[in-house]
Amino acid sequence: MLLEAIHHQPKSQYAYAYDEETLHIRVRTKRNDMDQVSVVWGDKYDFVPEKITTTKMVVFAKDTLYDYYHVAIKPPFRRFAYAFKFEKGDKTVFLNEVGFKEDEMHSSGVGMLWSPSGMFEFPFLNAIDVHTPPEWVKDAVFYQIFPERFANGDPTLNPPGTEPWTPDAVPTRDNFFGGDLQGVIDNLDYLDELGINCIYFTPFFEAYSNHKYDTIDYLKVDPQFGDNDKAKELVEKAHERGIRVMLDAVFNHSGFYFPPFQDVLKNGEKSRFADWFHVKEFPLETDPLTYDTFGFVPAMPKLNTENPEVKAYLLEVARYWVEDIGVDGWRLDVANEVDHRFWREFRDTVKQANPEAYILGEIWHNSLAWLQGDQFDAVMNYPVTNSILDFFVKDDIDAETFMGRLDQMLIAYPKQANEVAFNLLDSHDTPRLLHIAEGNKDRMKLAALFQLTYMGAPCIYYGDEIGMDGGGDPGCRKPMIWEEDHQDKELFDFYKKLIRLRKDHKALRDGSFRFLSAAKDAKYVAFERADDKDRFIIAMNSDKKQHNVNIEQVGNHSFTDIDSGDRYKAKNGTFTVSVPSLGAVILKKQ
Amino acid sequence: MLLEAIHHQPKSQYAYAYDEETLHIRVRTKRNDMDQVSVVWGDKYDFVPEKITTTKMVVFAKDTLYDYYHVAIKPPFRRFAYAFKFEKGDKTVFLNEVGFKEDEMHSSGVGMLWSPSGMFEFPFLNAIDVHTPPEWVKDAVFYQIFPERFANGDPTLNPPGTEPWTPDAVPTRDNFFGGDLQGVIDNLDYLDELGINCIYFTPFFEAYSNHKYDTIDYLKVDPQFGDNDKAKELVEKAHERGIRVMLDAVFNHSGFYFPPFQDVLKNGEKSRFADWFHVKEFPLETDPLTYDTFGFVPAMPKLNTENPEVKAYLLEVARYWVEDIGVDGWRLDVANEVDHRFWREFRDTVKQANPEAYILGEIWHNSLAWLQGDQFDAVMNYPVTNSILDFFVKDDIDAETFMGRLDQMLIAYPKQANEVAFNLLDSHDTPRLLHIAEGNKDRMKLAALFQLTYMGAPCIYYGDEIGMDGGGDPGCRKPMIWEEDHQDKELFDFYKKLIRLRKDHKALRDGSFRFLSAAKDAKYVAFERADDKDRFIIAMNSDKKQHNVNIEQVGNHSFTDIDSGDRYKAKNGTFTVSVPSLGAVILKKQ
Repeated sequence: MLLEAIHHQPKSQYAYAYDEETLHIRVRTKRNDMDQVSVVWGDKYDFVPEKITTTKMVVFAKDTLYDYYHVAIKPPFRRFAYAFKFEKGDKTVFLNEVGFKEDEMHSSGVGMLWSPSGMFEFPFLNAIDVHTPPEWVKDAVFYQIFPERFANGDPTLNPPGTEPWTPDAVPTRDNFFGGDLQGVIDNLDYLDELGINCIYFTPFFEAYSNHKYDTIDYLKVDPQFGDNDKAKELVEKAHERGIRVMLDAVFNHSGFYFPPFQDVLKNGEKSRFADWFHVKEFPLETDPLTYDTFGFVPAMPKLNTENPEVKAYLLEVARYWVEDIGVDGWRLDVANEVDHRFWREFRDTVKQANPEAYILGEIWHNSLAWLQGDQFDAVMNYPVTNSILDFFVKDDIDAETFMGRLDQMLIAYPKQANEVAFNLLDSHDTPRLLHIAEGNKDRMKLAALFQLTYMGAPCIYYGDEIGMDGGGDPGCRKPMIWEEDHQDKELFDFYKKLIRLRKDHKALRDGSFRFLSAAKDAKYVAFERADDKDRFIIAMNSDKKQHNVNIEQVGNHSFTDIDSGDRYKAKNGTFTVSVPSLGAVILKKQ
Repeated sequence: MLLEAIHHQPKSQYAYAYDEETLHIRVRTKRNDMDQVSVVWGDKYDFVPEKITTTKMVVFAKDTLYDYYHVAIKPPFRRFAYAFKFEKGDKTVFLNEVGFKEDEMHSSGVGMLWSPSGMFEFPFLNAIDVHTPPEWVKDAVFYQIFPERFANGDPTLNPPGTEPWTPDAVPTRDNFFGGDLQGVIDNLDYLDELGINCIYFTPFFEAYSNHKYDTIDYLKVDPQFGDNDKAKELVEKAHERGIRVMLDAVFNHSGFYFPPFQDVLKNGEKSRFADWFHVKEFPLETDPLTYDTFGFVPAMPKLNTENPEVKAYLLEVARYWVEDIGVDGWRLDVANEVDHRFWREFRDTVKQANPEAYILGEIWHNSLAWLQGDQFDAVMNYPVTNSILDFFVKDDIDAETFMGRLDQMLIAYPKQANEVAFNLLDSHDTPRLLHIAEGNKDRMKLAALFQLTYMGAPCIYYGDEIGMDGGGDPGCRKPMIWEEDHQDKELFDFYKKLIRLRKDHKALRDGSFRFLSAAKDAKYVAFERADDKDRFIIAMNSDKKQHNVNIEQVGNHSFTDIDSGDRYKAKNGTFTVSVPSLGAVILKKQ
C-alpha cells in the first residue's frame, strides 16, 4: 500500500451532503493498489463498538495515478464520525483524522483509535447548506445564440452600416449584421425542430460593441435588438414551447460608456461614482492603467462589487430579468474574478426571484470554491471540453488519459455540480468545432456524440448543427446560415436524432456513467450509461482504422445496435463490437 | 520522485490570500523527496515567456509522510496563473492543472504547457474575501472562567442550597457555590497580576443548570450571577485594565426551559414556535426522541437556525452583547452542527457591531470549512491540545510524531487562522491539566511552557495557575481556591513569568516557528521562534533523564539562557544544550 497516495479532506468534495439525508464519502488511493476500501462509521454521540458499521466503497473514477472510491451513506441522525479501512492481501490499515494505524481492529478490537475524538466527522447535515441545483438542468439541451448573428427579424432596428446577411458574409471585430430578438422569435420553430430546450443568450443589454460585453445599461435591451417588451415576448413564446432562456451577466466589468464610468472619467475623484470602480490613482489614465480592468482592456473597467451601491444595482439587475421578464438562469461572465461575497448575495437574490433559476459560472479552471452550495449551481465545463477535443478531434491523447481527465472532474466537485455542468465544445470565444476538426465531420460528430451522451447539460453553439465553421473571434461569429441549400442537412439530422435519443432516455441524461474500455495508447473507448430502466453501451473509435472493442463486466445480457439492429450477446459478461474508423456504435440492452 | 504524494488544491489552504496583496501558495511532496520546489507564475492576461517568474519555495512544515512547501507572492495585478516545478538530481517535473509533465521547460522552452489555460489560477484577490482576524488576538492570553465557580462577590444572589465555598468543596452535577459577576469584578486585580488580557466566560445567561449551557433567556444575565448592568460594569472595568471579554454563544440548542420550547411542549404543532426546533413528529416525546437535540440530551433541543425568526432572535443576541454591553468576542458552542449560512450572517452582524470582535468556533475536528474568511476567525485548537498532552504529559508519542501532528495543523488552515487559534490545554469539558499529568507538576509546566511560547492565543483554565486539580466534569469545576495557603504560589509565579516573557517579546507571540530538533523515538524537542528583533531557541525534555540536545542550522550566533545566564556559542551553526529531565531551557540570541 502506498500510504502517501491516500487523500481525504473532511467537508469537501470528498465528504458532502448530496441531499437532505445522504452523505457522499470519497477517498483517493494509488491506482490499482487496494483489494477493498471501506468506511467505518457510527454516530458520534453513541460511538460504541456494537453500533459501528463498515460500508464497502467502490471505485467510481480513476486516472493514470489514482483510484477514487465512493460511497453514499444515510446516517440516521444526519451526522457521523468515520474512518477508512484499506485492505490489501493480509494487510489492513486504518485512516482517521489523526493518521494511519495498522491492524487496529484486528489487534485490539474496537479500541482507543475508535473513540469519536480521533475520527473524521461530518458534524451535522443542515438542509439549508445542501448544494441543490435545479432538477430541470439535468434534462436540458442548451443552444447558444449570439444575438447580433442569429437572425434579423426587424430590419427597422438595423444600426447604421449594417452589412448584408449572406452565407459568405465576413464578420469583423466591429461590423454589424442586424440580428435581433424578433429574429429569434421568428425561428423558435427551428429550435423546436432541432429539439433544444434552453437558449443561452450572450449579452443583449445596451452596449457599444457587436458582442455587447461592454454594457452601457444592464436594465435595457439594446435598441439594435429590440426592447424589454420584446424580450418578455421572446421569453413567453419560448416558454410556450418548453424552451427556457438563460442570459449572460457581465458583472465583473462594465463598458466604457456605462454612465457611472463616464462620470468618473469626467469628474475624477469628485464623481459620486468614484468608488464604483477599482481606481488606483486619479485621474483615470490608460497608459499605464490607473484602474483595474478586465484583462488589460481599458474599455472594460472592473466594477467594485464590494461597494454597496454597485452591489444593490447589480442585484436589482439580477432580480429584474428573472422576476419581471421571466428568464430561467444567468451565465456569469468572468465569474471567478468577482468576490465570493457578491455571488452569495447574488444567489440569494436570484433564487428568491425564482428558486428554479440556474446559476452558471464562466470559470475555465478548477471551480470547487464556487460549487459548495452557496454560490453557483455549476460551471462551464472547460476541462471536459478540452478532454473531448483532445481525444476525439485533435487526436492528442490516448484513451487512458482521456478517461483520467474526465474522471478527475468527477472527483473535483460534488456530484450534483457535475450533474448540471454546462458541457460546451465551442462558443463565441473559441474556434468552431468543425474548424478545430479541420473540416473533418466524422471527428466533429464523435465529439458531439460524446457530449450528447455524457452527464451534464450539453450546449450547441448556433450553426454548428448545420455545418457552419470559422476560426477564433471574429471567425466563429458569422451570421447564421438560413438558406437551406447552404445548410448541412445530414449534420442537422444527426444532431436532431441524438438530442431525441437523449430526451427519450433518462439513462443518457442522469444515469450512472462508467468507462468499459479506456486503455493506454488506445484510440477508442467504450462506456456505459444506465438507470433503472435503460442501459446503453457506447463504443467510439477515434482512430483512422477499424477496431474490435472488447466490452467486459456487463453481465450476460443482450444488446442491440440502435442504428443497424445488430445484436450482441455477452458471454461471461463479455462481448466484442466492431467499431468503424472514426465511428461509433450505440448499443441498448434488450 | 513520488508523484502520487504530490498534492495541491487551488483556492484552498494551499492557495489563499493572506492579506490584500499577498498570496500564499503551498504544495505537498513525499518527505525528503525533492531537492528544490518552485512556483512558476505570470499574469494570466500577459502570459509570455519573458514575463514568467520562478520563485523558490521552502519547507515550512513536515510530518512522517510529507514535506509541505510554502511561498508568499505579491502578483502585481492581484491575480496569477501558476504551476509547480519539482527538481531532484537530473530530473525536473512540472505540475499544472492538467497534470504532470517532465522536462517541459528543458525540452521545448516555454511551450504549450505554459499557455495560461492549462495552469492553476488564482483568478483575482478581492479584498472583501480576505480572511482577516482581529490583530489583538495575536497578543492575547486568555483566562477561562466558569462563572458559578470563580468567586462569590454578592452572597445576596446565592441560589437556595448554595454550598460553602471552601478549598475542599466537592462539585457535583447539580450543586451551586454562588459564583457571580461581582466576584469577577472583585478579582480583576488578581487577573491583572497574573498578566492575562482576555477573559473567556462560559455562559452566564439565564439558564437552569449550574453550567448554564441550557439557556432560558439569551438576552439576560442569570439572576444568580447579577444583571445586565453588572455585566456592563464588569466589561468596562476589565477594559480599563486592558482586559477583553469573550462570551459563550450556545446557539446550536436551547435549554429545556427556553419559553419557545415550553410553548411547543405545551401546544405541539399549533405552537407559534413549532418551527423553531427540528421536530420530526408531534407531540414531543423523549423515548424515542421525536425532535433533534444536542447529542441525545432531551433537555437540549436543537434550534432550527434556518427559521428566519430564530435567526433574527439569535443575531439580535449576538449584536446586543457586543454593541450594547461591549464584549469583544464570541466563542461558539457546538459550532459545527449549526448551518454555515447562519454563521455567515452571524459574522456580518458581529463584525458590523465591532469589526475587532473575535469569532471562535468550538470544533474538535478539522475546521477548514469554517476558516475561509466568511465564518470564523479561528477555532479551539484541540488537535494541538491533544498533541501537547500526548507528548509532554502522557508520554504517548515521540518527538517526530509530535512535530508531524503540530505541522499538520499548519498546513490544515490558512496561516491567519493559525495565528489566532485558541490553544487550550484543559477546560470545563475535560480533566484539569494537573490531573491529566497525574499530579506531576513538571509535566504540567512543560505543557504550559510550550503552550505559552507557541503560535496562537493560549488560554489558561481558572485555577490551573495555582495548582487546582480535578478529573472530568464535575471534578474540574471546583470553586476557585482563594485561601493563599492553599494556592501553589510557585506555580503562579511560573505562569506569571511566562506570560510576562510572551508579552515582552513579539517573537514568542507572532514570530516565525520552526522545529530544530524532533527526532524519531526521541522524547525531547527544540524549536525556534523569531522575528526581526528577537530570536529564541527553546529546548524541552519530556524524558525522565537528562539529554544533550543538538541544535543545528542556527547561524554562528551566541545565545543566553534567560534563567541561568549560561552562554552558548554556535560553531558552524551548531551547538549542544543540556536539558534536565522533565525540564526546559529557554535561550535568547544576544
